[in-house]
Amino acid sequence: MLHFFEYNWQVRDEWLDWCHQLPVEELVKERTGGVGSILYTLFHIIDIEYSWIRGIQDKEDIMVDFENYATLEKVTALSNQFRTEIKEFLYKDLASFEDKIVTVPWDEQPYMKSEILRHIIAHEIHHIGQLSVWARELDIQPVSANFVGRKILV
Amino acid sequence: MLHFFEYNWQVRDEWLDWCHQLPVEELVKERTGGVGSILYTLFHIIDIEYSWIRGIQDKEDIMVDFENYATLEKVTALSNQFRTEIKEFLYKDLASFEDKIVTVPWDEQPYMKSEILRHIIAHEIHHIGQLSVWARELDIQPVSANFVGRKILV
Repeated sequence: MLHFFEYNWQVRDEWLDWCHQLPVEELVKERTGGVGSILYTLFHIIDIEYSWIRGIQDKEDIMVDFENYATLEKVTALSNQFRTEIKEFLYKDLASFEDKIVTVPWDEQPYMKSEILRHIIAHEIHHIGQLSVWARELDIQPVSANFVGRKILV
Repeated sequence: MLHFFEYNWQVRDEWLDWCHQLPVEELVKERTGGVGSILYTLFHIIDIEYSWIRGIQDKEDIMVDFENYATLEKVTALSNQFRTEIKEFLYKDLASFEDKIVTVPWDEQPYMKSEILRHIIAHEIHHIGQLSVWARELDIQPVSANFVGRKILV
């Protein structure tokens, strides 16, 4: 499970770097599909990951408002800030809670914690696939999504 | 690991069903990003999964040519055919080979078998994300990518 988180974090960082070649207008421009703009997609991935990870821990949800993070620098900082906290939690003892059931504040349905971890993983990869189409529509090569052949450094 | 394969297979089947609402011209139409058309994307996912799974087993690669599968019915049949074989292999004893190293015919680099399984999983989710953008560009609701809340039947 952790390998997928590490993969996602690395790919996300590469997309955040990739974004530097675009003017801010392109980053926040409304696009068809997904959740809208390139920058909002990255923000959304970060926000959703953090919400579910807090949910797993039975912590209250912290709402973050895109209005306050609508620059590449702020989204990058938010990603780093949340990741520090998420790593601390996941690397401690994931195996001990994976099969436990939890109910999160925004969904009535109880889920197994491992199911939520898989949801977070698939959620990010899915949205990254959307970014890759928008990149080609901008005539720019997207970040590679390959899992094999990556040196994962976390 | 198997949960992700089951998720991908279910989502793939839903996309194959989803495709029935489109005329064949839209299915094979060249689009920007990804590997081209909607139908070719689904074919590509199936082809790549099968190749890597054969690679893990040290079996020679079987080339499948899209020319021979360029209808929704044929792509669906290919998916079902390969899946039967893949399931038989994966469900037998995945745990016994996950940490073994293998070299596949199309890549010089040796990989851990578990790394290849993760590559196959991320590969499909990534391309499905691309389909979701094309669906919205066609003004049609895409298949849900949610992992939580699915009843996975295999």
